[in-house]
Amino acid sequence: MLQLYSIENIIFALEIVGTITFAISGATLGLEKGMDLMGITILGLTTGVGGGIIRDLIVGQTPPLTFRNPIYLIVSIITSVIVFLPPVRKWIFSKSTLYEMLMLVMDSVGLGVFTVSGIQAGYAATSIHGVILLSFVGVVTGVGGGVLRDMMAGDRPYIFVKHFYASASLIGAIFCTVLWNNIDQRIAMTGGAAIILVLRLMAARYRWSLPKANPDRNTSDS
Amino acid sequence: MLQLYSIENIIFALEIVGTITFAISGATLGLEKGMDLMGITILGLTTGVGGGIIRDLIVGQTPPLTFRNPIYLIVSIITSVIVFLPPVRKWIFSKSTLYEMLMLVMDSVGLGVFTVSGIQAGYAATSIHGVILLSFVGVVTGVGGGVLRDMMAGDRPYIFVKHFYASASLIGAIFCTVLWNNIDQRIAMTGGAAIILVLRLMAARYRWSLPKANPDRNTSDS
Amino acid sequence: MLQLYSIENIIFALEIVGTITFAISGATLGLEKGMDLMGITILGLTTGVGGGIIRDLIVGQTPPLTFRNPIYLIVSIITSVIVFLPPVRKWIFSKSTLYEMLMLVMDSVGLGVFTVSGIQAGYAATSIHGVILLSFVGVVTGVGGGVLRDMMAGDRPYIFVKHFYASASLIGAIFCTVLWNNIDQRIAMTGGAAIILVLRLMAARYRWSLPKANPDRNTSDS
Repeated sequence: MLQLYSIENIIFALEIVGTITFAISGATLGLEKGMDLMGITILGLTTGVGGGIIRDLIVGQTPPLTFRNPIYLIVSIITSVIVFLPPVRKWIFSKSTLYEMLMLVMDSVGLGVFTVSGIQAGYAATSIHGVILLSFVGVVTGVGGGVLRDMMAGDRPYIFVKHFYASASLIGAIFCTVLWNNIDQRIAMTGGAAIILVLRLMAARYRWSLPKANPDRNTSDS
Repeated sequence: MLQLYSIENIIFALEIVGTITFAISGATLGLEKGMDLMGITILGLTTGVGGGIIRDLIVGQTPPLTFRNPIYLIVSIITSVIVFLPPVRKWIFSKSTLYEMLMLVMDSVGLGVFTVSGIQAGYAATSIHGVILLSFVGVVTGVGGGVLRDMMAGDRPYIFVKHFYASASLIGAIFCTVLWNNIDQRIAMTGGAAIILVLRLMAARYRWSLPKANPDRNTSDS
Repeated sequence: MLQLYSIENIIFALEIVGTITFAISGATLGLEKGMDLMGITILGLTTGVGGGIIRDLIVGQTPPLTFRNPIYLIVSIITSVIVFLPPVRKWIFSKSTLYEMLMLVMDSVGLGVFTVSGIQAGYAATSIHGVILLSFVGVVTGVGGGVLRDMMAGDRPYIFVKHFYASASLIGAIFCTVLWNNIDQRIAMTGGAAIILVLRLMAARYRWSLPKANPDRNTSDS
């Protein structure tokens, strides 16, 4: 029973949740762009495992974990195929409030999980454990899959458009690193991921946004 | 004579063919986009050596082979400059049936070669030789150069638009890995590359395509 | 006093100049695209440290230096925030001759510095010191941050549009490598960077351009 709540198991379970939600976001974007089954699966897979691959390349963990332990890859492929099934895709295209809510929550969980797992990989790979460095690795891991997804699909990356996405990841990453250095790894990872989830939900509820420069100058860009 | 047909020589010859054809596809896209000689060479070079560089970064072979053995790099540059020569580019822009046929065959050879060379690099780098993992490394290597080319030129990657491109690479990759584990490396690589070539030619001849979701919803996207 | 002019100090000072100028170019593009403060900072950071990260991934230096020594990262972030300040951004949007001149000079310094620092990293990482290989690593390092910036912002990379940008980097890289092998490292790096700066300024002054194919065919593309 203690085994079940080990830090490894918690991270693994959270990473699977994150992989599923990221794969859904990639496959759904593929659907919206009119791609075929293979394109949808590639985009789902890229989004699902992309953040982890970027993390592993940066910390020098080659071949990336995705290639050693195929579970993330298989989960991403199955998720993408399920998204393609007519009843599922019909429900996705309905853009119901439930769907929008679910996607917001799941995507925020994914952002939180990959941010803290990136920090964990950073701790394992380097001997200098500064807040700035580890937070940066965390954010890159958290938003990397989504950036790859948008660049491949020809959209401007989500992180430049969606207010308080990378910002939430950054705040959670700093929180996680400070707690890690001063209290406990398990509390740090759970707390960091939880803060990212809460910040994202509050940002969506209260329509938070960051300052922009001369918005009227850039009307052609929205 | 036996030396000539060694597995290393066969792979090398096939990789040179692949490099030339990928460089042509990159340089031609540069021509079509109105780039100058340097832009055309950069795009030809990226397409020619990009798949191999991605493969080497993933399996942890740094600096990538391209930087140790400059032959692929030199071949890509010379190919790009030849594509730029007025008689050659005039012939390319004529879009004759012969040109289209040649490009289809050569691009399919390149896809086949880089897919199986990616699998070979995957075998050399990891001790776990599962079909899923190795196939994935193979596909990433096969389609990577073309994805970089399209992302840099501002087009949606070919693999999302061209039916049965990544799919052919995937089927050949699985075939190659299964044969490699059960029969012989040489047969596996030749057979895998050949299957990819045949699938691509049949897909072009019979206009194969994969299922798409609600194509009428996405008319603005074609 | 000698210490001050050591090769390490010269490289470091030049890299900081390069990081600042690249961060300005990224943050300014973010401003022009109507991004918020976080988006502007991400784009400034990507441009400022992107070339160095690509260089380190290619030569196998993981985690990249940026993650070990946070100075480049901090400089990029501070620069991006300063660009966002109303008086600064007003001056940038004025597009005065002084601003255009400053950006040309500083961007050219950045291109020169990162090209030669890429060559230095290439020397340290490989035992084969051929001109072609090292020049290529240098050019990739020099133009990499800008290519990442443009791909993330959804623009066609600068190197395909701006005449004599990658070409200047390439000529300086070859010059640097030849001098390095035959004379002295310090002269090679200073000379290589200086040649890139001079070539860029002359190209801007005399409007150099490379041959293009059938420009009238591609009017829709400019």
